[in-house]
Amino acid sequence: MHRQKRVYVVQYGLGLVGRALLRQMLAGRERLRERTGLEVTHLALADSRGLLADGHGLSPEALSQALAAKERGTDLAHQPGGQPRGEDLSFLPPEAGPVVVVDVTAADGMDSIALEALSRGYAVVLANKRPLAGPLATFRRLTASPFVRFEATVGAGLPWIETLHHLLDTGDRVLRLEAAVSGTIGYILGQLEAGVRFSAAVREACVRGYAEPDPRDDLAAADVRRKALILARMLGQALEWDGLPAEPLYPRAWDTLDLPAFMDELPALDRPYAERMSAALAVGQTLRYVVEIGEGGAGCGLHQVTRDSSLGALRGPTCLLTIWTERYASDPLTISGPGAGAEVTAAGVYADIIALGREL
Amino acid sequence: MHRQKRVYVVQYGLGLVGRALLRQMLAGRERLRERTGLEVTHLALADSRGLLADGHGLSPEALSQALAAKERGTDLAHQPGGQPRGEDLSFLPPEAGPVVVVDVTAADGMDSIALEALSRGYAVVLANKRPLAGPLATFRRLTASPFVRFEATVGAGLPWIETLHHLLDTGDRVLRLEAAVSGTIGYILGQLEAGVRFSAAVREACVRGYAEPDPRDDLAAADVRRKALILARMLGQALEWDGLPAEPLYPRAWDTLDLPAFMDELPALDRPYAERMSAALAVGQTLRYVVEIGEGGAGCGLHQVTRDSSLGALRGPTCLLTIWTERYASDPLTISGPGAGAEVTAAGVYADIIALGREL
Repeated sequence: MHRQKRVYVVQYGLGLVGRALLRQMLAGRERLRERTGLEVTHLALADSRGLLADGHGLSPEALSQALAAKERGTDLAHQPGGQPRGEDLSFLPPEAGPVVVVDVTAADGMDSIALEALSRGYAVVLANKRPLAGPLATFRRLTASPFVRFEATVGAGLPWIETLHHLLDTGDRVLRLEAAVSGTIGYILGQLEAGVRFSAAVREACVRGYAEPDPRDDLAAADVRRKALILARMLGQALEWDGLPAEPLYPRAWDTLDLPAFMDELPALDRPYAERMSAALAVGQTLRYVVEIGEGGAGCGLHQVTRDSSLGALRGPTCLLTIWTERYASDPLTISGPGAGAEVTAAGVYADIIALGREL
Repeated sequence: MHRQKRVYVVQYGLGLVGRALLRQMLAGRERLRERTGLEVTHLALADSRGLLADGHGLSPEALSQALAAKERGTDLAHQPGGQPRGEDLSFLPPEAGPVVVVDVTAADGMDSIALEALSRGYAVVLANKRPLAGPLATFRRLTASPFVRFEATVGAGLPWIETLHHLLDTGDRVLRLEAAVSGTIGYILGQLEAGVRFSAAVREACVRGYAEPDPRDDLAAADVRRKALILARMLGQALEWDGLPAEPLYPRAWDTLDLPAFMDELPALDRPYAERMSAALAVGQTLRYVVEIGEGGAGCGLHQVTRDSSLGALRGPTCLLTIWTERYASDPLTISGPGAGAEVTAAGVYADIIALGREL
C-alpha cells in the first residue's frame, strides 16, 4: 500500500533523552514501517566523546548492545567498534542517501554540525535549544531551511512548534502568545499557592526529580529564557539573548555559593515569596512564571494572573501555551501538558524524524 | 536554500470552507514558496455540479475570478470554461505529477473519488467527515495510506488528528481520550449553566451563527457522533455507525416536525434541562456533551463533570481534547480552542495540503 523508503539517522547524544529515543526507535521499527512505509536506520551514534558508525547502517542488535553498555556506564569510545568523536560529519560517506542529523545533547557548539548537515543536504532535528538560542544569525540560518525541525526544544513532546509552523505557513498572524514553559517552576509556584514554604518547595522539587540536581539551573530561568527566545524568534522578533531578560527566582549573588550553602540561604526567601503569594491570592490571583510575546516584544518573569485563567488554573508541573492569532482572535488555541521528561521529549524528537523522513 | 517543488491540487467543494481555503491559498502563494519551497497549483476546482479544470494548472487570476463569480452566486458549471462535474477523476491527465485531492464538501459519496485518488498514487485531504464515518472498511482503506490526512474532520484547525498520529506513530499507547467536539452544544450548555432557558439558548445559538439554520442538525449530535467514530477508529476500535450511539438533545419524535413547529416545541425542554443543570451545579458539577474513548469502547452523551475539570471549565463554543497515554499517564495532553468556523477549518486543510505537498 505504501511507498517504502529508507532514511538514515545520525544521533548525537546518549543521555536520558537520547537513550529514550533509541529505545523508542528500536521498539518502533516494525510499526513505523507498517504505518508510514519508513525504514529508519542509524548510520552513527555519538555521545560527548565517542562515536559508533557504520556506513551501511548499525544493526538493531549493535544499537541495543551499545545502549545496554552505555546504561552500564561504558562510553561509546570504549565500546567495541567505538572511536573518538570528531567535531564534524566527515566520517559519513559522501553519498549517504537521505540523512537526518539528530541533536539530543544539551551541549554548546553543536550549531556547526547542524549547519554542516544542512550544507550536505541533510535534514536536522534539534532537541538541543542552544543552537537556536545563541546568535540570531545562527537561528536564522538554521530555520531558513524547512528541513530543520525542533519540536522538543520547547514543550518537549507537546505539539507547540509544529502548531506555530502550521499557523505561520498557512498565513495566520500571531497576535499574542502566553506560555508557562517550566514544569519545575510551575511545581514550586503551585506548592507556594498551597501554603508550602519556598525553600521546602524547592527541596521537594529536587527530591521528585522535577528540578536539576542544582536547582539554580531551573530557578535562574535560563532555560525558560532560551525557550522564550526561540518562540519570539519564530514569530519574527529580531532578538539576541540580552534582548530578552528573565528574572531569576533568587538573588544573583548566590550564584557564587556552593550547592549546600545555596540551599542554606533559601529559607531567607520563604517570607518574601509567602507574602507575595498571599497578596496575589487575596485578590483572586496567583503567581505564575509567564513567557509573554506580543507583536511589540517579548518578556518573561513572575506575574500575577487570575486564578481561573488557564495559566492560573495550571496544576503542578503542567506547561501551557496559549496563542491568539487573527484566526484565533477571541477564542485562542491552547495546548497544555507535561513540558519535560525523557520519554515525551524523545517522542517529540522521534515525531520530527518521522516527519522529515517522509519529506526527504 | 530550499528545494523548489510543484504540487497540484484538485479541490472539491466551494462552500464557506472551500472559498476560505481558496482565498488563503491565493493569498499565501509567495509566503509558502519562501517558507517551504512549495508551489501549489490548482489543476481543478469543483462545486456540487460543476468543474473548472486545466491540465497545466489554473492561473491565480482564473481562480480569483471563479471565486468572485461563485460568491456572486454563479455555479462553476455556468462560469466561462466551466463544465458539468463527473463522479470520477478521469478529467485529469494520466501523468499529472504529484497531486493532492482535497474534499472540503460535506457530501455523501465522496469516498469513491478519494479511493480513486489513492489508486492513482495521489494524496488526499479530507475536511469531509463522511468518507471516514461511513463503513469501517472504507475508513480502513483510506487511512491505511500515510498520504491521507484529515485534520479538519475533527476539531477544525486544532491539531488533534496530527497529534494522535504522532503519538501512535512513535509507539505511545492511548489509554483514554475525552473530548468536547461540538461548539454549538458547548455554547448552549454554557448558557444553561448561566441560567438561560434551553429554548432561548438554542435560539441564540442560531442567531449567533453557531448552530445550523435547522438547529436539529446540531442537537441530534450526528456530527458529534461522526467525529467520535473517527477518533475511536483511529485508536483501533472496529466500530460501525450503530456501534457508537449518541444521545440527541431533543425527543426523536420531533424529527418529523417542520422547523417552526420544532422551535415551538422547544420550551417544553426548558424545565427538564434547567432541573438537570441545577442538580449538577448543586454538587459542584455541570453538564457537558462528552466524547469518551477508552481501550474498552467509545461513547458520547450528556455527562455531569466537575466544574473545575478542564471540560467543566470550558467557556462558550470552545472545544477540547484531552488524551491520556502511557507517556502522558498522570498529566494528560490537552488541546483546546474553537473547533469550528470556516477560516480555521480551511487552515487545517491548508496545513494538511502543505504537509502532503512536502512528502510527495
